[in-house]
Amino acid sequence: MLSAKKSIQDIPVYQPGKSLEEVKRELGLENVIKLASNENPFGCSSKVWESLMNVKDQFHLYPEDDAPLLRQKLAESLEIDERRLVFGNGSDEVIQMIARAYLEPGTESVMAVPTFPRYETATRIEGAKKVEIPLKNGTHDLEAMLQAVNDQTRVIWVCNPNNPSGTFVNHEALSSFLDRLPDHVLVVLDEAYVEYVTDDTFPDSLSLLDYNPRIVVLRTFSKIYGLASFRAGYGIAHPDVIQQLSRVREPFNLNRLAQSATLAAVEDETFVVYCRNQNRLGLKQVMNQLDEWNISYFPSQANFLLIDTGFNADEAFQYLLKRGVIVRSGNALGFPTYLRVTIGKKEENEAFLAGLHGFLQEKQSRITI
Amino acid sequence: MLSAKKSIQDIPVYQPGKSLEEVKRELGLENVIKLASNENPFGCSSKVWESLMNVKDQFHLYPEDDAPLLRQKLAESLEIDERRLVFGNGSDEVIQMIARAYLEPGTESVMAVPTFPRYETATRIEGAKKVEIPLKNGTHDLEAMLQAVNDQTRVIWVCNPNNPSGTFVNHEALSSFLDRLPDHVLVVLDEAYVEYVTDDTFPDSLSLLDYNPRIVVLRTFSKIYGLASFRAGYGIAHPDVIQQLSRVREPFNLNRLAQSATLAAVEDETFVVYCRNQNRLGLKQVMNQLDEWNISYFPSQANFLLIDTGFNADEAFQYLLKRGVIVRSGNALGFPTYLRVTIGKKEENEAFLAGLHGFLQEKQSRITI
Repeated sequence: MLSAKKSIQDIPVYQPGKSLEEVKRELGLENVIKLASNENPFGCSSKVWESLMNVKDQFHLYPEDDAPLLRQKLAESLEIDERRLVFGNGSDEVIQMIARAYLEPGTESVMAVPTFPRYETATRIEGAKKVEIPLKNGTHDLEAMLQAVNDQTRVIWVCNPNNPSGTFVNHEALSSFLDRLPDHVLVVLDEAYVEYVTDDTFPDSLSLLDYNPRIVVLRTFSKIYGLASFRAGYGIAHPDVIQQLSRVREPFNLNRLAQSATLAAVEDETFVVYCRNQNRLGLKQVMNQLDEWNISYFPSQANFLLIDTGFNADEAFQYLLKRGVIVRSGNALGFPTYLRVTIGKKEENEAFLAGLHGFLQEKQSRITI
Repeated sequence: MLSAKKSIQDIPVYQPGKSLEEVKRELGLENVIKLASNENPFGCSSKVWESLMNVKDQFHLYPEDDAPLLRQKLAESLEIDERRLVFGNGSDEVIQMIARAYLEPGTESVMAVPTFPRYETATRIEGAKKVEIPLKNGTHDLEAMLQAVNDQTRVIWVCNPNNPSGTFVNHEALSSFLDRLPDHVLVVLDEAYVEYVTDDTFPDSLSLLDYNPRIVVLRTFSKIYGLASFRAGYGIAHPDVIQQLSRVREPFNLNRLAQSATLAAVEDETFVVYCRNQNRLGLKQVMNQLDEWNISYFPSQANFLLIDTGFNADEAFQYLLKRGVIVRSGNALGFPTYLRVTIGKKEENEAFLAGLHGFLQEKQSRITI
């Protein structure tokens, strides 16, 4: 009998959220607002389309394997050595590379729960053991994570700001954690949302990397850069770690159009600043309204908010869906009464708030009756 | 001490061939012809660019995870059930998925040597044992591969037509091989070049798959479709096998632009027929000249030829490179006196032949002296 390896037998096949197109078809709605995947409501830099024209005549050629132009530009912009970069088909693929290079049966990896789910899946696929440490007040419990480290631990995943809670560990806490960590453990700092952060106490991870060679910082072009379609992410690490990751990297994994688009996007700093400012305004808009309604949420440094409806999250999700607003139910995210909502444009945020208000009124009137 | 897993320590970091841009810069040449990566010299369907305009406003949105439109179109075109398809960031990624799902320490995989190198790398990354069976007259030795199967064998890789030799195993040989294979082994039929095949005895792999659920057929959009930039390949298999592969597949692994471009390409059958015919003419052009010069080569059903120069392949490669023609030296491919040359446009083939002629004249005159 043909059989796949045991360690993957319980891994569920990934079930993506509903796409815009699907929801429109199913509900017969014209206007649907998607605030479910933390995408950038402002699109991407106008320079991206232009950059694709430049590669129009090269579609039949494999991309350059090491993304030399993007690598150079990004290294300059981050003020790091070019050899500290590795690119992935989304930062998801860099997570996969880390697991493939460092995890195997008999090893362990430590992660928060709830957090971004790919750490767990990547760990299980390699047949390694996952060790899950519950969030404390919605934030990574670094002390407990440190206590969970043993001789078998190879990787610790720190999602910062954390998805789905939006909270973060600050520079001081992270730095002290790193100092006490034994030197056989690699720390992954997933900073997918870092360009949205405005808090001064957020870790300066690149400076930590300067004197700690056991850190991989993950970044992505899918969030503030608005290039989720292209699948492009990267890792920043010591050249020795980069070399291990490169051993398991697929050749040509970063497609040519992504290389071109991201290069254009890195050069357009104005767009990034604009989006960060707009996101800050949108966060305030939503938080002010929630405060007025006495609804609690986690403080967020990202482009989303995790909001406690006080009722079944799936019900809230369905209520909003029927009114053309797609959000994420916290039910599958470990927060069964919460919604995770992406901060959209002003009018999108208003539509979400109106829907949430309607839902709460309906639920509360039923309770009153 | 931080250390990556043992099984990957000897895996070399992938060294890509020189890109067009690199060679131009280094040699100060204006006109460089690349016949090194079996790319399509005729580019891609003119409908591809148009298809990108359709997704121009969605760059900030994640691609649909299951490529529903491409899936539907391709299933129709191949006359198969939609559930028989899995997509990858190039067929390289499907190779990786097969290895991740079926291979682990203690298992083995059987492959030809020389063949496409990713089978070996994928096997080693999983910590599984590779069993290499030498080609026989440049062709897969199916009998010896069968003999190499034991209880630990999980996967057999058959590259058909084989890269780098261009040769193939025919329907009868493959069918008989499959009939005798024990049922705990998965057979991967890598058909990256299948759309170039004109020989009637080439296996009808989809009909074999109909009654043998232990086959994965690999196809790609990087060759005849001319979309190597986009990174898109797929596997065709029984839904049970597809499900195992899906457990280890990264979400959103096929980028949105690739989904759009490949859909347009599948709809343009005229372009594929044109390229197949042109390739056939180009093969004849090169083979006729080689026959005239009494130079031997392997019969090819693909868009490349493996040609015996009779001298050190690296020298031949360098000679051609200096004259602006990039080919692949057989040295790293297990054929130390051969060149692997992609069939190009008529004038590109002429340039290659002129270069080869010059090289041989120089070598032979030295011998004579």
